[in-house]
Amino acid sequence: MLKMSTLLLRTLRDDPADAEVASHRLLVRAGFVRRVAAGIYSWLPLGYRTYRKIENVVREEMDKAGFQEVHFPALLPKDPYESTNRWAEYGPDLFRLQDRKGNDYLLGPTHEEMFTLMVKGEFSSYKDLPLSIYQIQTKYRDEPRPRSGIIRGREFVMKDSYSFDVDDEGLEVSYNKHRQAYINTFDRLGLKYNIVSAMSGAMGGSKSEEFLAPCPTGEDTYVLCNGCGYAANVEAMVTKVGAYKGEKVGAIEVLDTPNTPTIDSLVEVFNSKYAANITAADTLKNVLLMADEKPIAVLVPGDREVDLKRLEANLAGVKEIRLFEDADFAKHPKLVKGYVGPQDAKAFGMRLLADPRIIEGSHWITGANEKNKHARYVTCGRDFVVDQYIEAAEVRAGDSCPKCDKAVIIDRAIEIGHIFQLGRKYAQSLGLTVLDKEGKPVVVTMGSYGIGVSRAVAAIAEQTYDELGLSWPAEVAPADVHIVATGKEDQPFNVAEQIAKDLEAKGLEVLLDDRREASAGVKFKDAELIGIQKIIIVGKALADGKVEVRDRKSGDKQEVALADVVKTIVK
Amino acid sequence: MLKMSTLLLRTLRDDPADAEVASHRLLVRAGFVRRVAAGIYSWLPLGYRTYRKIENVVREEMDKAGFQEVHFPALLPKDPYESTNRWAEYGPDLFRLQDRKGNDYLLGPTHEEMFTLMVKGEFSSYKDLPLSIYQIQTKYRDEPRPRSGIIRGREFVMKDSYSFDVDDEGLEVSYNKHRQAYINTFDRLGLKYNIVSAMSGAMGGSKSEEFLAPCPTGEDTYVLCNGCGYAANVEAMVTKVGAYKGEKVGAIEVLDTPNTPTIDSLVEVFNSKYAANITAADTLKNVLLMADEKPIAVLVPGDREVDLKRLEANLAGVKEIRLFEDADFAKHPKLVKGYVGPQDAKAFGMRLLADPRIIEGSHWITGANEKNKHARYVTCGRDFVVDQYIEAAEVRAGDSCPKCDKAVIIDRAIEIGHIFQLGRKYAQSLGLTVLDKEGKPVVVTMGSYGIGVSRAVAAIAEQTYDELGLSWPAEVAPADVHIVATGKEDQPFNVAEQIAKDLEAKGLEVLLDDRREASAGVKFKDAELIGIQKIIIVGKALADGKVEVRDRKSGDKQEVALADVVKTIVK
Repeated sequence: MLKMSTLLLRTLRDDPADAEVASHRLLVRAGFVRRVAAGIYSWLPLGYRTYRKIENVVREEMDKAGFQEVHFPALLPKDPYESTNRWAEYGPDLFRLQDRKGNDYLLGPTHEEMFTLMVKGEFSSYKDLPLSIYQIQTKYRDEPRPRSGIIRGREFVMKDSYSFDVDDEGLEVSYNKHRQAYINTFDRLGLKYNIVSAMSGAMGGSKSEEFLAPCPTGEDTYVLCNGCGYAANVEAMVTKVGAYKGEKVGAIEVLDTPNTPTIDSLVEVFNSKYAANITAADTLKNVLLMADEKPIAVLVPGDREVDLKRLEANLAGVKEIRLFEDADFAKHPKLVKGYVGPQDAKAFGMRLLADPRIIEGSHWITGANEKNKHARYVTCGRDFVVDQYIEAAEVRAGDSCPKCDKAVIIDRAIEIGHIFQLGRKYAQSLGLTVLDKEGKPVVVTMGSYGIGVSRAVAAIAEQTYDELGLSWPAEVAPADVHIVATGKEDQPFNVAEQIAKDLEAKGLEVLLDDRREASAGVKFKDAELIGIQKIIIVGKALADGKVEVRDRKSGDKQEVALADVVKTIVK
Repeated sequence: MLKMSTLLLRTLRDDPADAEVASHRLLVRAGFVRRVAAGIYSWLPLGYRTYRKIENVVREEMDKAGFQEVHFPALLPKDPYESTNRWAEYGPDLFRLQDRKGNDYLLGPTHEEMFTLMVKGEFSSYKDLPLSIYQIQTKYRDEPRPRSGIIRGREFVMKDSYSFDVDDEGLEVSYNKHRQAYINTFDRLGLKYNIVSAMSGAMGGSKSEEFLAPCPTGEDTYVLCNGCGYAANVEAMVTKVGAYKGEKVGAIEVLDTPNTPTIDSLVEVFNSKYAANITAADTLKNVLLMADEKPIAVLVPGDREVDLKRLEANLAGVKEIRLFEDADFAKHPKLVKGYVGPQDAKAFGMRLLADPRIIEGSHWITGANEKNKHARYVTCGRDFVVDQYIEAAEVRAGDSCPKCDKAVIIDRAIEIGHIFQLGRKYAQSLGLTVLDKEGKPVVVTMGSYGIGVSRAVAAIAEQTYDELGLSWPAEVAPADVHIVATGKEDQPFNVAEQIAKDLEAKGLEVLLDDRREASAGVKFKDAELIGIQKIIIVGKALADGKVEVRDRKSGDKQEVALADVVKTIVK
């Protein structure tokens, strides 16, 4: 039994100054967490109870799925992370340190290397696989902007799993087992979520999905179709286009368009000078970039921007990408800034990437590769040839769902899980092979799967809080029942304690507010703020042999005879 | 159900090269832990199960005692550790690092500062106390010589508690509650231990006790009386002496003792030259030291050395202590190296500390403060006055127990717990005060209490292993029953699995060796190595409708009818 009279808990009436989101604000005010440093938090007793309940749900669901629990250190030697080049790639996001002998260590941000090496150390045959192992462990990332309390911290707890299979079919099976285990886990936690197609990075086209918990203040944006349920993160959204059904046009016409280096100025001059009625969507934007220091052009309709994150996620085999700068134009004098068109790309030796909306046969108004001139009737497939279609144009609410054609919305969410077909990258770098049936070594294929365990505390809080405070789903509440004793006499306190004991005897956890000096009003407000669903008030109604039972979420109140209270609550 | 056919486990026949102690050797061979770097280990599935059982026992016992669980980060800002000066004091034992902005952080070796600040942040009145809070958390110490596997690691898990009280009486109560909770915990874990008086350091005479698990390869030595059970660590051992009962002697006699700068040479020359029959115990050794750069002498009987650790632990208010060097003798020319005696200490301006055996009235052969000369009949209290008695002489097996006078033994052990009356040091440094009944601020007094949770895995292994392998107490074994199926047919494997299911239905945890390719011999050896107490062999006896039930520890075997096996095991 937790008694408020002795509990390490002081609720706060005011919001903390640094709290931007509701979960942060309320978790601090309700005495669940306290800030130690930027992105680094301590757990007070109530908060840690909720955290541990979530951890236990995660562990139970992983065990049920047949995954084996292991545990790695957080303090890791540099070597394995050098083998995979992540020591360098992580950059300043990695906490690095040296021991007393000057050896390099890091605080693990994720453990692919260590899991790979563990399996390499123990297993050697295809018969040993498949294998899925997991840990629930503290991770470290030196976030440039730690924020939103425990949602994006620098020290946080993750459940990370890794699957090991001999072949792609095996990986698919392991991946789907994790997917189902995640569904089971988040359902039990009472989280609302969408399973969202994600890019697997430029490493190859393996499958990847994110579990996103919708939340207006979430950091992740994603595309959602309320028609068919299609969901994808912005990088992975697919543009749906049909065949070109517009008019056929004649040969390219080059027109004078003085002072029109931007799409807006082009539309204005074009319409006034040539009595036309075009919009930005009729023009073709040629965005020039350097990809690993080679020039490329990305073509998008003039009413859209290039989304660099989308471009990077979809552009395989390129390490560094940046926009053309003045120095680049100087080196390529044939590319006239503000007046570039794709019709001479071949001559310029430049690859043409294009948004799928630039359909074969469609024609566009675009630069004429001459200052102050534009061309019209520039036709895709006739006047220029797209080297590669790519998803690089910005995604907008109202774009067509690739599955059902309805307009999608852009929604915000917190990422609570991620499942990912890693493939053979880590096994290759670290030499994890097993002998197959013929006795030949084959590189193992891996999956990696994560749940933000400490973050889930905040995600659940974000999805369930109301204007009164936190409001926990039963599975993760710090206790099952919150009993408030009020008044100046001993009787309500004695009765409350007896009810608490009776409920505990039935296996329920009780938080008993037995504070003598706090007013009834303060106690009620604290009960609302802390957010346990079942609240019993032992006070005035006691004169009639009754207590009040409140439901935190609905606010419903009923008076229940003392003799029936345990039965009412247990039911 | 854990199945060996899919378990991430490879037992090893050979000892690892770097393993010095049995627990390390066996935990590696049985596939419980793997080394990642010096003093840094990973847990494999079987090992982590045992670790978690220990963690749960510790948590349950802390909760039962009414202590509240909280959780702190391991990555901590420098500031609080500067306030208490521990940032500097810890020296190279502390892992230090900087974040991307160049701010200083440390990996927490212990959390006194953080607990103190947490309570300061929440509480303000004497009515809020007493409070005992704890965490089970990963700690970091950059040990100069990490060794013995997980016994002395650089990353390890501790349960650390802290108590907060208004006054010394309260601290005594909190301390005793912890003491009892530790007894309950270690009893449940099946550990044998002694509660050993310990020094609380030079901070003041507060109480401190260590829980030491006797073990021949343990790093800690302590004094144990098999007569009355008195136990103390070497620093805290108390010398028992009575009043001087020897002869009275006349005035000091100075004798020529050429070339006798050591006790051995003195005894030899003295006996031969003066036809005497003295031993080293009749001589007085004057050990000169610089304490914070002031000379002191420590007097001990000539047959004992000064134990510097004991001296440091018992010498309050001194920061640095070192033996006299030649340069020191040069600065103090009246102190003749090898011929120092206490009779002129006053004149030399030197404090005289003495072992309690240098009783008032006792007389000694000691240096005459002149080269090649010694003096006899130098009498304590007459010819020199001891400024302070101190426990600084080495402790030896056979010394008298201070309680019952019997001869003590010196035993080795692993420290598994430590309870400690911290007092007001941290509260003072960090400004933790509460208002007392009169509304006046009083500095809170604290206790600090630790259990090595990951270390307990090794301590239990050390105390229970035998020549066949590990042998776990039921409460912490990775499973309750180990079932081995043998043979080439399906039947024993099917039967074994059915028994496993039946046992699981009774709430028991089963490790099932269902490997088809391993020989019966390999499986039996693995079962012995892994160390689960109840082993069921499903094999040959099946022809008679029976299985064999083995007891790991005693080696007892019995054949049990299939129908009775669940009953037999559950009983």
